[in-house]
Amino acid sequence: MTYCVGLKLNEGLVLLSDTRTNAGLDNISTYRKMFFFEQPGERVIAIMTAGSLSLTQTTIARLQEAIELPEADEETSIMRASTMLQVATIIGRTLNRTRREIVDQCRDLNQQASASMIVGGQRAGGEMRLFLIYPEGNFIEATEDTPFLQIGEHKYGKPILDRVVTPQTSLADAQKAVLLSMDSTLRSNLSVGMPLDLAVIRKDDCRVSHKRRILEGDPAFMAMSAAWSAALRDSFVKVTI
Amino acid sequence: MTYCVGLKLNEGLVLLSDTRTNAGLDNISTYRKMFFFEQPGERVIAIMTAGSLSLTQTTIARLQEAIELPEADEETSIMRASTMLQVATIIGRTLNRTRREIVDQCRDLNQQASASMIVGGQRAGGEMRLFLIYPEGNFIEATEDTPFLQIGEHKYGKPILDRVVTPQTSLADAQKAVLLSMDSTLRSNLSVGMPLDLAVIRKDDCRVSHKRRILEGDPAFMAMSAAWSAALRDSFVKVTI
Repeated sequence: MTYCVGLKLNEGLVLLSDTRTNAGLDNISTYRKMFFFEQPGERVIAIMTAGSLSLTQTTIARLQEAIELPEADEETSIMRASTMLQVATIIGRTLNRTRREIVDQCRDLNQQASASMIVGGQRAGGEMRLFLIYPEGNFIEATEDTPFLQIGEHKYGKPILDRVVTPQTSLADAQKAVLLSMDSTLRSNLSVGMPLDLAVIRKDDCRVSHKRRILEGDPAFMAMSAAWSAALRDSFVKVTI
Repeated sequence: MTYCVGLKLNEGLVLLSDTRTNAGLDNISTYRKMFFFEQPGERVIAIMTAGSLSLTQTTIARLQEAIELPEADEETSIMRASTMLQVATIIGRTLNRTRREIVDQCRDLNQQASASMIVGGQRAGGEMRLFLIYPEGNFIEATEDTPFLQIGEHKYGKPILDRVVTPQTSLADAQKAVLLSMDSTLRSNLSVGMPLDLAVIRKDDCRVSHKRRILEGDPAFMAMSAAWSAALRDSFVKVTI
């Protein structure tokens, strides 16, 4: 499995993904699940993926290929699309087409292939937007009321987001929130694993403002995780029923 | 859905269940999911249920009927079984038989019926034990290493249990832990709802030592929930990355 979370805040987008991929419990690998398509200052698109690796990799490769084609236009290339809505539409269409092909190939085996994606970004002069794209290619969007979107193993890390994230949350607090949400998920579910990829896209920057890979044993992450555990245990002692 | 959690601690068992039952989103009801079979001082058995209501109700009714039959014996009646292992075996067998019947009846509709149960208790002179019974009737048991068992919507409420529950946890702290675990689940998942049923079975009491129904708006539960939210937000502010 996977855990990816994206926040759409007044100050910008905050994205976090893990990197664990497994085909059964005895075949575990590390694969990046966060991808950027960027023309700094003009356009930035971030994609996070969850689901069958063959499906997500092929979808990302096809999106890249479509950008590089000489006949690339706003209907086919996410780097030429005129709005983020059009970007989401192209990605949804590519994901759905690739999924159908793989499902068709697997039909004899009665196997399924499925994937979902979180897509965020901004085009100069346009709105900053964040979408969750379903395996079928349709999508939903983060709003004022629901400023975060999750894919993969989303349940363990949802309570902390439900409690602390609003559109007014600062980018610093938002990074802490997604890391704590991931920390709960890592502790409770083996199929989600380090390293982590964290990215911040500040509003109107139209570029990846900040990105960071957090490795296993990262001192700052370990300190935060330990401090959070200690704080939770302290809180637990203080609360009465 | 449902959320039920049981802890097996050195001092006794702590059990908590919600009461929400739904057939679709527009047909929501309240049903007790915690059942006791008790001969105080001699034997206490608690059962919590998750899954198809027709299946869990019929299973509980059949267990009750088997107790009352004139020919009831230790192979058929959970009130006569000589060990808690035998109790779990009878319950597993009854659950599996009932499930197979219902699945068979539903075959034309391509519908599934499934349920799982948490069973805890003690017989005078025997060990206090806690089992999770699968729909197929087989079961696992809580141990020193894994002192809690969950059924239903278990993911939201697992991180807090992972952090604070050990076999040495006191019964008072354990009640707080299961209530906070439920609180996170209630906040994040609509299919789990108040009122709650909480029970404590102290070791060697061989009776329900304490039970309590916590209604919507219960002042103590609301105060605990608010204090926990405030403590989490405080902790969130204090932790740095």
